[in-house]
Amino acid sequence: MNSRRTRIYEGKAKILYEGPEPGTIIVHFKDDATAFNAQKKAVIEGKGVLNQRISEFIFTRLNELGIPTHFLRSLNMREQLVREVEIVPLEVVVRNVAAGSLAKRLGIDEGTQLPRSIIEFYYKNDQLGDPMVSEEHITAFNWASPQEIDDMMHMAIRINDFMSGLFLGIGIKLVDFKIEFGRLYENDMMRIVLADEISPDSCRLWDIKTQDKLDKDRFRRDMGGLVEAYQEVARRLGIIAEGEKPERSKPKLVKTDLN
Amino acid sequence: MNSRRTRIYEGKAKILYEGPEPGTIIVHFKDDATAFNAQKKAVIEGKGVLNQRISEFIFTRLNELGIPTHFLRSLNMREQLVREVEIVPLEVVVRNVAAGSLAKRLGIDEGTQLPRSIIEFYYKNDQLGDPMVSEEHITAFNWASPQEIDDMMHMAIRINDFMSGLFLGIGIKLVDFKIEFGRLYENDMMRIVLADEISPDSCRLWDIKTQDKLDKDRFRRDMGGLVEAYQEVARRLGIIAEGEKPERSKPKLVKTDLN
Ligand SMILES: Nc1ncnc2c1ncn2[C@@H]1O[C@H](COP(=O)(O)OP(=O)(O)OP(=O)(O)O)[C@@H](O)[C@H]1O
Ligand SMILES: Nc1ncnc2c1ncn2[C@@H]1O[C@H](COP(=O)(O)OP(=O)(O)OP(=O)(O)O)[C@@H](O)[C@H]1O
Ligand SMILES: [Mg+2]
Ligand SMILES: [Mg+2]
Repeated sequence: MNSRRTRIYEGKAKILYEGPEPGTIIVHFKDDATAFNAQKKAVIEGKGVLNQRISEFIFTRLNELGIPTHFLRSLNMREQLVREVEIVPLEVVVRNVAAGSLAKRLGIDEGTQLPRSIIEFYYKNDQLGDPMVSEEHITAFNWASPQEIDDMMHMAIRINDFMSGLFLGIGIKLVDFKIEFGRLYENDMMRIVLADEISPDSCRLWDIKTQDKLDKDRFRRDMGGLVEAYQEVARRLGIIAEGEKPERSKPKLVKTDLN
Repeated sequence: MNSRRTRIYEGKAKILYEGPEPGTIIVHFKDDATAFNAQKKAVIEGKGVLNQRISEFIFTRLNELGIPTHFLRSLNMREQLVREVEIVPLEVVVRNVAAGSLAKRLGIDEGTQLPRSIIEFYYKNDQLGDPMVSEEHITAFNWASPQEIDDMMHMAIRINDFMSGLFLGIGIKLVDFKIEFGRLYENDMMRIVLADEISPDSCRLWDIKTQDKLDKDRFRRDMGGLVEAYQEVARRLGIIAEGEKPERSKPKLVKTDLN
């Protein structure tokens, strides 16, 4: 690991550093948890490592399935090398079961199976609280082109298909998840690839037998046991061995060129 | 006018009575004004007549242009005969300039010209506060089919084109408006027609020279002079003669079969 590197961006859950080659970046998964647009905050030891490892696992499988992603390889337990992309300023949410804001806004009981999967777009803007938008707003304000919306929706459906199957296989219902996409410029071509992360921070995962929540709602709703739940997901995915001790060490302090 | 008739529905601004023939209804425009999901209420004498006459004028012109509507004819100053339709449970909003909820949600200064006209859908449900929805929710919950969404969007654009021109011609900027559509079943065929009303209650209309608001925002924002503003719109449209006194009489009490 470099001891001096250039920090590009520090977000709520991750830090981005310049990568070893142009067009690459290093994503560092922090232990910070935030919810409700960062009004609620905590440090949850071990979360970053679990998210990095779960996200690595899912992105690797998606790459193999021919769904293009930014992911190149993991560098250590907490960090991964990815292609730098121009992030589309949208959070794309896929829902299979009513929960969270959809349940509230449309007056549907949480836990109700939706008649079909629903894709939603939210404008990535913390100041505005990530407002929901439709294709009309997205194209009018040039956040993405109609072709890009199409590409993202098709990829979102494929990702939902794969992940629904994956989690079903380990006794977990994939209720909903949030993904981000980015533009990759290569040989005068531009294509949309999956970026950011897929982890229990960005999914709702309910144990099929017990209905236990194995996701960030444990933090949002003060239920405790977040790391244990994420470990359980990692264990069922075969990422950490039965009985393996979770890495509990504090993230090493990394010197950067910025402050 | 019948003195005994069957009331079908009383809304916030209008009452529906059974019409003289099956498949028709009589729409009675009340003087009641409401805003913010009926948290704010008032009776504004003369409003109902003005809305009926302005809506009659616009629906007649739209029918002539080949845009199908529910409108048949006015019966008196306050009432019109329309075809009964199955209302699509959506409020369709067309916006040319940022104002109201769009300005707030997306952090755009009120009065900013939008890069292009934007069509929004809101789920008609007072209890939920008419939440904004996208095509995904509309088709998943079967509120309208993809073909119907297409038809409504095309008609909405045509209506916006006509109304933008009409109001521009009389020195008024059409900022935005809300419309409703309904399903009409005829000879084993179903088609979507424009229903409800188009009036200063359902539009934002700004005087181009003075920027004066000539619409229901005068009520929402406690600016006063609502009837005078609606009269000004009617006068410029040639509906009421220069110097004609607005009808200020209370709506006649009408006996109905319901309570
Ligand atoms: N391949 C990539 N190239 C460039 N930026 C990326 C890439 N993948 C993810 N990002 C961006 O990196 C940041 C990750 O940090 P983090 O998830 O902590 O952000 P955040 O606090 O959630 O804020 P944001 O609202 O920007 O997502 C996000 O802004 C994300 O959009
Ligand atoms: N041609 C039609 N056939 C049947 N219903 C109609 C027709 N045109 C309009 N409507 C409905 O009649 C009602 C008109 O009443 P009003 O505008 O006062 O309702 P409202 O208080 O705004 O409530 P809503 O939320 O139902 O619109 C609306 O529910 C509208 O959808
Ligand atoms: Mg993020
Ligand atoms: Mg109404």
